[in-house]
Amino acid sequence: MSSIHIDTNSSGPHKASVTDFIGKNPIFVCVTSYTETSQIPGITIAGADPQLIPCTPAADAEFLYYGQCKSISGVPATPDGIPTPALITRAALLRSQIPILIVDAGSKIKPQLPAISFGIKYGRDIRNQRALERADAQRAFEFGKMIGIQLAMSNDILIIGESIPGGTTTALAVLTALGIDAKNKISSSMSVNPHELKNEVVSSAMRGLEDHILQLRNDPIDLVSRIGDPMIPSVAGIASGAISQKTRVMLAGGTQMTAVLCLLKAMKIPLDGICIGTTSYVKNDKSSDILKLVRSISETVPILSVELGLEFSRKQGLRMYNSGIAKEGVGAGGAAITSILKSKGNLDSTSLLHSIEIEYEISIESQRVGSL
Amino acid sequence: MSSIHIDTNSSGPHKASVTDFIGKNPIFVCVTSYTETSQIPGITIAGADPQLIPCTPAADAEFLYYGQCKSISGVPATPDGIPTPALITRAALLRSQIPILIVDAGSKIKPQLPAISFGIKYGRDIRNQRALERADAQRAFEFGKMIGIQLAMSNDILIIGESIPGGTTTALAVLTALGIDAKNKISSSMSVNPHELKNEVVSSAMRGLEDHILQLRNDPIDLVSRIGDPMIPSVAGIASGAISQKTRVMLAGGTQMTAVLCLLKAMKIPLDGICIGTTSYVKNDKSSDILKLVRSISETVPILSVELGLEFSRKQGLRMYNSGIAKEGVGAGGAAITSILKSKGNLDSTSLLHSIEIEYEISIESQRVGSL
Repeated sequence: MSSIHIDTNSSGPHKASVTDFIGKNPIFVCVTSYTETSQIPGITIAGADPQLIPCTPAADAEFLYYGQCKSISGVPATPDGIPTPALITRAALLRSQIPILIVDAGSKIKPQLPAISFGIKYGRDIRNQRALERADAQRAFEFGKMIGIQLAMSNDILIIGESIPGGTTTALAVLTALGIDAKNKISSSMSVNPHELKNEVVSSAMRGLEDHILQLRNDPIDLVSRIGDPMIPSVAGIASGAISQKTRVMLAGGTQMTAVLCLLKAMKIPLDGICIGTTSYVKNDKSSDILKLVRSISETVPILSVELGLEFSRKQGLRMYNSGIAKEGVGAGGAAITSILKSKGNLDSTSLLHSIEIEYEISIESQRVGSL
Repeated sequence: MSSIHIDTNSSGPHKASVTDFIGKNPIFVCVTSYTETSQIPGITIAGADPQLIPCTPAADAEFLYYGQCKSISGVPATPDGIPTPALITRAALLRSQIPILIVDAGSKIKPQLPAISFGIKYGRDIRNQRALERADAQRAFEFGKMIGIQLAMSNDILIIGESIPGGTTTALAVLTALGIDAKNKISSSMSVNPHELKNEVVSSAMRGLEDHILQLRNDPIDLVSRIGDPMIPSVAGIASGAISQKTRVMLAGGTQMTAVLCLLKAMKIPLDGICIGTTSYVKNDKSSDILKLVRSISETVPILSVELGLEFSRKQGLRMYNSGIAKEGVGAGGAAITSILKSKGNLDSTSLLHSIEIEYEISIESQRVGSL
């Protein structure tokens, strides 16, 4: 387990450790959502063909289940051919027999698989409109909570990942509106993080809200419905349901998940039992700062990160993860951590890398890479 | 556990016993579907107001989650005021902390809760049209199998119930088409079982199929898509996925579930690990014969039945279950059996009856009974 690191400020007899998050019976939940904010040119790596961006969440979810996509041909990949991190997630979950549940919370394109539907609309471009109907944000949280409570009866840890293009920008907006200094700390799937563009988008979105921002912070669901995306209240709801039943939660993702943490805190939901699970590529990213972000929200929420060692891979498409592209997504880091922890020593990151490479051979090298 | 009986033909060292179906970690799955066959006057007890029949599955599912309905006012009930068996299911699941998952497989009205959507259309009136597109029946089975496989990783037994008005008639049609002599053996939620009407409907549905019935039996998904309903292939799929992972399955329902068994057998899926779980009101029903039906499909599939003792209830609406109305539905019998078995002796049918009566007081006596 030496490939998994933990950052926490907790101390004393209750000092958090990696072993706190070993699940005997974990389940991986992937929330697929969409925001029209992703259509802003330059905001997401999938920008090479904006028409395909709305398909990415469905394609990621399909990839998790089938090892191939149905909503697009090929698999989601960057213009350089770096495949979706769903590949890492799938390899990790398969390897340790961890079940998957897909939650469709405001997708634009529905995944072609049996998904739990929250029946809410996708998010709009936050620059010039309310992101979600307030009722949809409320429903996302409540339906999430219901599912979290049910899953907590069967499972001792919930790993919650996401697929929402453009989601780091809406996360930045929510963090900013909630009073967190998140500028230049949010990560990106691109090698050059477009901080300026993101800041501009958030400034536009904040315009008109600044006058009553303190009032808005007292109604965090309203706030997230104005300036967020459907993923944030959905994941927050699932997490809150699970921890209400004393089942642990790993928010599996990069800096986006700090917006979920921040929403939970604003709703006065205790964060005990929640951790962030991510990759070392996010944790060590010089163009963002997940540690500072988490610590500005909570002194104690642990951040687990895994060294996947993709830089040692025989596959170029995987080695690129270390050069600052993709980094994380679809819960890859959390899935890898959970897979390693569940195996109780039978699996380390070297053997997991081997599984990831096999998955790469099966699903990438033998298929045409999609044009995303 | 003396209130739970088992009928099985297995013998020797592997003789099935009630204790085989004790789940440490059970999950209850409720499949909601609709068939326009339910609109035939006199076919279902909900016939008092045909316009509300399509709402019953959604209302049942909502009742399970919330203890009240959202798609109708009040709760589903017979014209005499006998409430939906979902009341029994809810009380049993809550009592033993058994999680619920709703699968929307061809509902007409979508339940207002987070449900797994199979994305298929509801069934048509089998008298004069193909019930389902073949692709939808195939998808129901495949999506079911995918969910069954995932749930089997977390849960050691799956209890699968259903809510589909008119479903006993489509079950009769499927059994008949598959060569089972099911006439007058299928149960009904009504006190006087409308066997003649059901037989007429099935005769109409069979017209045109008889010439190539042997050929059809070699393609059971096609057969069920012509003459069945969306519930049957969906439940069969979920069951097949779970047993493929060696997780046991309890088909929680009355004679409808024999159509699921029969479909699985026709698809050459081994029935090991599957049982039927029902109420004594179905098992002892003089106007149907679940024992003979199951034995004409399988020598060994166990039938578990529970004596709920509703005849001893202080509530008239519950006592009526013993006079041949409602009897079973929404997995009530299987949920009660699982709840008792999971408690390992802490819960018997007397204390479960008490929980059911409390649920009755909360959800029926304090609310206006709906007009179904």
